[in-house]
Amino acid sequence: MATVLVKLKGFQKLTLTDQAIQTWFTALKVGKPRVTQVPLQQTLNRVLAEDLFAQESLPRFDKSAMDGYAVKSSDLMGASQSKPAVLQLTQANQLDSKQAKQIWTGHPIPKGADTVVMLENTERRGGDVEVWNQLAPWTNISRIGEDLKQGYLVVKAGTRLNPYHLGLAAALGNIELKVAEKPKIAIIATGNEIVEVGAERASNQIYDSNKTMVAAMCQELGAETSDLGIAKDNTEEIAQQIQTALKNHDVIITTGGTSVGGLDLVPDAVNKLGKPGVIVHGVALRPAMPTAVGMLEGKPVLILSGNPVAAVIGFEVFGRPLICKILGMPLEEPRPIVKAELTRRITSALGRKTYVRVRVTSKDGELFAEPVSAKGSGSISTMTQSNGYVIVPENREGVSEGETVIVQIFGVVEVA
Amino acid sequence: MATVLVKLKGFQKLTLTDQAIQTWFTALKVGKPRVTQVPLQQTLNRVLAEDLFAQESLPRFDKSAMDGYAVKSSDLMGASQSKPAVLQLTQANQLDSKQAKQIWTGHPIPKGADTVVMLENTERRGGDVEVWNQLAPWTNISRIGEDLKQGYLVVKAGTRLNPYHLGLAAALGNIELKVAEKPKIAIIATGNEIVEVGAERASNQIYDSNKTMVAAMCQELGAETSDLGIAKDNTEEIAQQIQTALKNHDVIITTGGTSVGGLDLVPDAVNKLGKPGVIVHGVALRPAMPTAVGMLEGKPVLILSGNPVAAVIGFEVFGRPLICKILGMPLEEPRPIVKAELTRRITSALGRKTYVRVRVTSKDGELFAEPVSAKGSGSISTMTQSNGYVIVPENREGVSEGETVIVQIFGVVEVA
Repeated sequence: MATVLVKLKGFQKLTLTDQAIQTWFTALKVGKPRVTQVPLQQTLNRVLAEDLFAQESLPRFDKSAMDGYAVKSSDLMGASQSKPAVLQLTQANQLDSKQAKQIWTGHPIPKGADTVVMLENTERRGGDVEVWNQLAPWTNISRIGEDLKQGYLVVKAGTRLNPYHLGLAAALGNIELKVAEKPKIAIIATGNEIVEVGAERASNQIYDSNKTMVAAMCQELGAETSDLGIAKDNTEEIAQQIQTALKNHDVIITTGGTSVGGLDLVPDAVNKLGKPGVIVHGVALRPAMPTAVGMLEGKPVLILSGNPVAAVIGFEVFGRPLICKILGMPLEEPRPIVKAELTRRITSALGRKTYVRVRVTSKDGELFAEPVSAKGSGSISTMTQSNGYVIVPENREGVSEGETVIVQIFGVVEVA
Repeated sequence: MATVLVKLKGFQKLTLTDQAIQTWFTALKVGKPRVTQVPLQQTLNRVLAEDLFAQESLPRFDKSAMDGYAVKSSDLMGASQSKPAVLQLTQANQLDSKQAKQIWTGHPIPKGADTVVMLENTERRGGDVEVWNQLAPWTNISRIGEDLKQGYLVVKAGTRLNPYHLGLAAALGNIELKVAEKPKIAIIATGNEIVEVGAERASNQIYDSNKTMVAAMCQELGAETSDLGIAKDNTEEIAQQIQTALKNHDVIITTGGTSVGGLDLVPDAVNKLGKPGVIVHGVALRPAMPTAVGMLEGKPVLILSGNPVAAVIGFEVFGRPLICKILGMPLEEPRPIVKAELTRRITSALGRKTYVRVRVTSKDGELFAEPVSAKGSGSISTMTQSNGYVIVPENREGVSEGETVIVQIFGVVEVA
């Protein structure tokens, strides 16, 4: 495995980020998603589990693309503003020679008609209509199957469904869709120093923010989460919590109890519970170096740092692609990408993939990325102040002010 | 009101898009959102209704930014690798002179200590630790309030809450947040030619896709929707449906029954029900020209085209900013914007704001926008095939191949 030697105690080596993901995913052998049938109206943002084919053609009949009159094109031969064709209006569903029928956009073309003349090229005179122009056959008509032919692939399996996919599925007559079941994710926080939000605290304790944040990140991607509470800094207690969680969850995510040079209570607990246990511990990634990934009973275990921002980046790098994979998406769901001018130098260490939080703003049509810095990486406020990541690869040491950077956008970009 | 004269029958004038929105919003006088208190864990993607201030400072105590030893900086004077400072290890919460206490990232600094030395600059020898460098006071320590000072504005009212906002709110001890109530939106489809998805159809009838799609678009923005079924092409029936809907909904959205030059059943029904009724009917917007907006009992009524793509664009232009406004967002929520090279000429009419669906792809780091065309504007498949809009303003007639365009992204951009 590709590693970077570092002089830290505790970690003798760090695994390169991409290698760590690949090694983990190879061990996990994530299969096809479990499939569930869901009413169409409840499938927004769910991931389609089977290719959706067109059960019928769209349109299913020749229909008018305009408001106007359905006519026979042969009746318009030689018609002009000075010498209009005069056609008799009918209500029948079948047109005879020299007849016209009023028609609205989207409505079926009556039998015998082969073209639609726009209202603006006509004049009504009692029971007749005057038409001022000639038209080729099938003008202003959407033919059967023009939009979509029966049997065509409409939405690929692995697609996250948006309102338009739902609309198209409705137009084809689907009252239900087969989507990937939501993976069940257990979230366990660890640490003597943390208490539940709003609970009583000692003077050296703080509220846990990681479970709330990790749960929300999982839910955003379409997973179901269970909050399994806070385990004390005790290998036995942590192991017991994880074992309980394994019974009815697909993924275990922990926060805290993994560090650079310190105690590794969670990795120790995972290794105690079975094979292979921890697969990678220590990643050449900033922040999020102490992240560990493993497997128990064939299920993925993601061990995030207790530092909130490192937990976010660890989730971004490992949790996000994992959930996409479990949902049957062919690739990790890409975030929107923009190019922006860096407004201040970024420092980063050679040999580490570095996630820099930036605030992108738009000014006079140009985008600017301002690094959102803080002394430690721990402050969640750097996440709420930013709307994107600049990812500095391992082979670069910093990025200069004024350089064009690629930003992965996760928040709203305001226009300054 | 700024209008564009057109030679169409029915519409003698079209209102400019921005004017139409402004006129509607001026009439509506949307006030502050109704506020509801929701458990923190259920506030993802909700819109914050009141400014959130920091109840306490973060960190709430001086904490270590590193794994290492808490020491007194004065004890390190002159220390170097050849002449280390030797300090006695202690477990106490108070340091005496020449003492050191092991500490982990995020933990409180013991009394008497004023700096943290990193593990890698130390060597442990029995009950002592050797320190190899001097440090200024407060090195590697996050001071009280360094991230956030008590009383500071943390999240502004009108912000859509992401996982990081939730994390920050948790860290500050918020078990609930005040968010905007979800507006209740009634959706009514009209038309003799449509039936509910999966229902029995005559040979000239089609499944309704608009209600499903409009509901999903509303839900994406954080509204609650009710499906009020399909009204026949009959002013009385439509009026009755709208009147019923007004009783317990905040917004009414209809599809169909409004056209260019044809029957205006829905606008007629709305005008019948009260004042002001329809405020704008006919917009210089492509597609979506037949869109109408109005007000009944002080509530917004949005009358969308029955053509699915025109309904989507009508919603995008009028429905989206409306819902954002009702939710108390200061501005319409911007979509991510990218610049891309247009791969094929766009045609558009002078005097119309034109929404062109494009598929943006990324190739070798460059973005390309391919117009997704179809004969009519009606095909929803043009929406599922595209991932962004190019908006051509009223004063331009088409855009040339190769030009750089600004694309509003609504879907995933794949890397080719």
